[in-house]
Amino acid sequence: MKPFMNEDFILKTETAKKLYAMCSDMPIIDYHCHINPQEIYEDRKFNDITEVWLGGDHYKWRLIRSNGTPEEEITGSADNRTKFQRFAEALPKAIGNPMYHWTHLELKRYFGYDGILNGETAEEVWNLCNEKLKTDDFTVRKLIERSNVEFIGTTDDPADSLEWHRLLKEDKTFKTKVAPSFRPDKAVNIEKDGFCEYIEKLSAVVGKEIDSVATLKSIMHDRLDLFEEMGCKAADHGLDYVVYAPASEDEVNAVFKKAMSGEKVTQTEMEIYKTSLLIFFAEEYQKRDWAMQIHYGTMRNINAPIFRKMGPDVGFDVISNRCCCEAIAGLLNAFVENNACPKVILYSLNPADNELLDTIIGAFQGPEVAGKIQHGSAWWFNDTKTGMEDQLTSLANLSILGNFIGMLTDSRSFLSYTRHEYFRRIMCNLIGEWVENGEYPDDEKALCEIVQGIAYKNAKRYFGI
Amino acid sequence: MKPFMNEDFILKTETAKKLYAMCSDMPIIDYHCHINPQEIYEDRKFNDITEVWLGGDHYKWRLIRSNGTPEEEITGSADNRTKFQRFAEALPKAIGNPMYHWTHLELKRYFGYDGILNGETAEEVWNLCNEKLKTDDFTVRKLIERSNVEFIGTTDDPADSLEWHRLLKEDKTFKTKVAPSFRPDKAVNIEKDGFCEYIEKLSAVVGKEIDSVATLKSIMHDRLDLFEEMGCKAADHGLDYVVYAPASEDEVNAVFKKAMSGEKVTQTEMEIYKTSLLIFFAEEYQKRDWAMQIHYGTMRNINAPIFRKMGPDVGFDVISNRCCCEAIAGLLNAFVENNACPKVILYSLNPADNELLDTIIGAFQGPEVAGKIQHGSAWWFNDTKTGMEDQLTSLANLSILGNFIGMLTDSRSFLSYTRHEYFRRIMCNLIGEWVENGEYPDDEKALCEIVQGIAYKNAKRYFGI
Amino acid sequence: MKPFMNEDFILKTETAKKLYAMCSDMPIIDYHCHINPQEIYEDRKFNDITEVWLGGDHYKWRLIRSNGTPEEEITGSADNRTKFQRFAEALPKAIGNPMYHWTHLELKRYFGYDGILNGETAEEVWNLCNEKLKTDDFTVRKLIERSNVEFIGTTDDPADSLEWHRLLKEDKTFKTKVAPSFRPDKAVNIEKDGFCEYIEKLSAVVGKEIDSVATLKSIMHDRLDLFEEMGCKAADHGLDYVVYAPASEDEVNAVFKKAMSGEKVTQTEMEIYKTSLLIFFAEEYQKRDWAMQIHYGTMRNINAPIFRKMGPDVGFDVISNRCCCEAIAGLLNAFVENNACPKVILYSLNPADNELLDTIIGAFQGPEVAGKIQHGSAWWFNDTKTGMEDQLTSLANLSILGNFIGMLTDSRSFLSYTRHEYFRRIMCNLIGEWVENGEYPDDEKALCEIVQGIAYKNAKRYFGI
Repeated sequence: MKPFMNEDFILKTETAKKLYAMCSDMPIIDYHCHINPQEIYEDRKFNDITEVWLGGDHYKWRLIRSNGTPEEEITGSADNRTKFQRFAEALPKAIGNPMYHWTHLELKRYFGYDGILNGETAEEVWNLCNEKLKTDDFTVRKLIERSNVEFIGTTDDPADSLEWHRLLKEDKTFKTKVAPSFRPDKAVNIEKDGFCEYIEKLSAVVGKEIDSVATLKSIMHDRLDLFEEMGCKAADHGLDYVVYAPASEDEVNAVFKKAMSGEKVTQTEMEIYKTSLLIFFAEEYQKRDWAMQIHYGTMRNINAPIFRKMGPDVGFDVISNRCCCEAIAGLLNAFVENNACPKVILYSLNPADNELLDTIIGAFQGPEVAGKIQHGSAWWFNDTKTGMEDQLTSLANLSILGNFIGMLTDSRSFLSYTRHEYFRRIMCNLIGEWVENGEYPDDEKALCEIVQGIAYKNAKRYFGI
Repeated sequence: MKPFMNEDFILKTETAKKLYAMCSDMPIIDYHCHINPQEIYEDRKFNDITEVWLGGDHYKWRLIRSNGTPEEEITGSADNRTKFQRFAEALPKAIGNPMYHWTHLELKRYFGYDGILNGETAEEVWNLCNEKLKTDDFTVRKLIERSNVEFIGTTDDPADSLEWHRLLKEDKTFKTKVAPSFRPDKAVNIEKDGFCEYIEKLSAVVGKEIDSVATLKSIMHDRLDLFEEMGCKAADHGLDYVVYAPASEDEVNAVFKKAMSGEKVTQTEMEIYKTSLLIFFAEEYQKRDWAMQIHYGTMRNINAPIFRKMGPDVGFDVISNRCCCEAIAGLLNAFVENNACPKVILYSLNPADNELLDTIIGAFQGPEVAGKIQHGSAWWFNDTKTGMEDQLTSLANLSILGNFIGMLTDSRSFLSYTRHEYFRRIMCNLIGEWVENGEYPDDEKALCEIVQGIAYKNAKRYFGI
Repeated sequence: MKPFMNEDFILKTETAKKLYAMCSDMPIIDYHCHINPQEIYEDRKFNDITEVWLGGDHYKWRLIRSNGTPEEEITGSADNRTKFQRFAEALPKAIGNPMYHWTHLELKRYFGYDGILNGETAEEVWNLCNEKLKTDDFTVRKLIERSNVEFIGTTDDPADSLEWHRLLKEDKTFKTKVAPSFRPDKAVNIEKDGFCEYIEKLSAVVGKEIDSVATLKSIMHDRLDLFEEMGCKAADHGLDYVVYAPASEDEVNAVFKKAMSGEKVTQTEMEIYKTSLLIFFAEEYQKRDWAMQIHYGTMRNINAPIFRKMGPDVGFDVISNRCCCEAIAGLLNAFVENNACPKVILYSLNPADNELLDTIIGAFQGPEVAGKIQHGSAWWFNDTKTGMEDQLTSLANLSILGNFIGMLTDSRSFLSYTRHEYFRRIMCNLIGEWVENGEYPDDEKALCEIVQGIAYKNAKRYFGI
């Protein structure tokens, strides 16, 4: 039996260990996450481990809820020690859950705690972590530095001034490159509450009335330039499902005006508007050599009473298996028809789409860069050992695994960089198994290129960092 | 090489064996099955092994049909010895099929036969089994007792008098608790032939005319009370696909009247009616602290000529992959909006829904009980080694596996309790593998709580037995 | 560590090796492929390895495209040596891709090359292969003979004269039986460009005006007889998605006339027409005891600019996950209602349909032959190690694996017969694992029947070869 989470964690074979040794020390390119640039600039410190772990992590909230814990003690007014206790009590039953691994990896790598977190050890862990969080080793910048992060791509709204990004850019004391990513969801989601308010906010920011799609696009053009100036390498679109409903400029504009007048748009109108914006943005990204990330396959806020109470992004979003293969193909085809297909990274929340996506990406590749169209790393609910193995295996079966740009944290936390370690171990273990089984030659040079590529070099090359 | 089905069957590692030893002797809570309470009460005996095995088991019928055997020798007028022979001849080719394991587990555990069933040994097995079936060790009650069954939840119609349940309740000589489960499908399936006849039958049973949905609901209320009195802990709904189509009481009532007038209802009307009843039932279950089981994802009776000849439930139902994620989310949301969401157990016949369901359950948990909303054990066609591993893995990835209420037979046979053994071995093997790989600590106390919980204690607690 | 692709390639256990030894020498029944009978008859020779490997193989083209190679050097005007170089350079990064295995199996088995193909060895391999291709050991007939192929089922259009098949039939010097397969897609795909032209071409071939569906069917009847005469054992239908839309003869005829008048048919009309033809063809196949293959689950030519430049079948087809379980069930039911259900082999391009298909086949079996309705071998993009394991496992779980008719190449190349070796190794490894784990008895006779059946005997029996 292997001890729990020792130095060979996940690595079953000698080859796996050898491969992991080749890439474990490589820097991290965290090209998609949700951390706050202000907190990096201000080098935030945390008061206690609950603040770090349970302050904004809906993964953990869901887990604790599944244990029958009242909301009061999860996100409510209970004190931080109690909240930590509830988490610690739920964790031991969460065998097989990636949270079990993430938590202990973070305890080991950042806090040097080698024990097991459960209801009984919670007090000990609470004290240890809080003690350490007070030290200068646990400021945001120190955590990033200790994690060997070379590049961070945050997620930013077009209306954002990017002031924190500008300040970070000017601050030469911090080595990690922090760049914004362009995420115009609020301008795209015409069917959602708050669309008009958002457009008005954007209008105020740029000091120009937005009375047509044409004006909106022209303003976006300027915002894209600002992002470009701040070092942006990628955009991101979160779609419940991928749409493709081509229409004339006039039709699109009519939909926009209808929405701005406060009227509810129909589903078809929503699709028409989104399609137009997506094609427009794709062209802009292509010009700037950015990658366009598309995340789809969600149903959001499905528990309405909770949504009314707590708002979005608190753990009530789920996988959708709505069929949208034709729209994905149609949209990408519209990009190539428009002669402006950017680098695209497709992420589906439904793991049953893996094979489908791996065939679709093969139909839109181009000579600009190896692996121009990518199937993104196992996303959100799929960010598990089996989820990552399935994504890697499907990608290997149907494309060139060696061109994969690999892992990202997608996280709101500064302790999540161990997920890159987790990913690298899983990737090396999978490849190691193939080599041990005689399915690939034990060719050190070729293997090194593959694992270092997936761990680091491909992303660096792909995004031009 | 491990000998076929020895004491370590399925258990690959030392940890797996240790875990199995912790739970193998625990009682069985068989909370969902289709056995006949009358046969328990009357302590039925069987004439021969064909009667036991091939009398009503559409799993086995399908298998024999796939071997090119004429229906005559499966469910037709051929003699029982011939039917048994055909099954025995098909079995050796069914490598990898759970039926191969179920059959040999039953032969070993109940009949003490350690050989292999095939065309040549059929005569020997036939004689041995039939000899034993004559003994008092093979009455229904004895089989249940020998299987260490603590609780049996049968499947019963609201119109049922539950007389056999009442008699069983009064009979203090039988230790196993037998309770009905409430399955009002015939009152819900408004689109099916026989709906009016069923409502009339129910009307006759309660001696009250049913001329509106309100009356139907009020009668159901009384029937629910009767079930409650008989110890019912769970209800069950079989839906081809989950529906969610909210409408006013008047609209629902109009659909009911249309159907009762003999007119065919439209698909939308059917969905409206079903939605209303499901929300009503959910509220009633919640009041009584019952669990609401929802089984969906089927196409039934797809071979029409056979259906006309043989009727339903004879092996011509299949998996549907019709998308209904929005309806599932919508329906559960309607329960919480109605402030009356019961414990719910979701089962999909399409294994591609595993991950989707495991995210949906996370959005409706509550403080009443740990794991209030459950993803049910791998159902029907998924009740295989890989099917169970996939369900357990997905549940572990996305929820708290340690709160899972585990296995049920869903069976019509009194020899099926070995499926709990099969499940426990598979569950212990999976968890054992994680521990051996260093993915979970070798913590005996925590592991014992998990495996005993899944094998027995969670269901006992969840259903309040 | 096992050396790369040694004699025990894929075979992990002793039992797997034993099982493989039982079936590795059996002849090949390649019942579905796309090779050209003219090239067999004329015993074609190849000029260089690029011609053999990259002349028409869209699998390889996709792979090279994913490496960022310009089309010019894939299918364009670059010289053959350059094209080969680009393939050799992409290959080492394609770890885990079946192409990696296929390529090296072909190099080993046909060319006796035991090295690794990559950018550096490309020159050596190029020279070696081209040298050998000049010899008489590498003519088409010699390759087939060396591969121990007993039967080849090509893919042929109803309008084809089958002249090369006739010549092959008359040529007694060639031992392998070559038969046409009937693929009337062009007469079925009423919605596609070129339908009218095809009907006119067919009309010219038979010298009879086709002014109604009835005439079309009567002509098809004669063509079917011609195929029968040439030894045809199977038909094949490629459908983007399976349709089932029953209609009257008049309605069907009206759709046909509309299409022939040059008008675009609606989606419903298309489905009506196809349904009628499929039921008609099924009846004809049933009379002739042919197997009806149905391949579905594709989106084709999704990159429109490339389609306009390069036409179909060049690597721009992908998996569709459009739901069609109801249509599949409806169509097969229509066959049995028509009292004329032939042997059917169902192939889905979407691997998520595996379980669904394995349940559907169980609802239409018949006494004519064991495994009358089959779930075809993992198709196209699923023709990978994991894809085949998944198909075999699902089939084993839900049907009788021992009746499976096994592998086919589906290939355009004369070097692809090693895919049967690949399949047999994977199948023997999977079964061997079950036996080693004690999940099936180590019964040599039963196992031999199973593996020899799947490798060869079942197909021979099923197709009546």
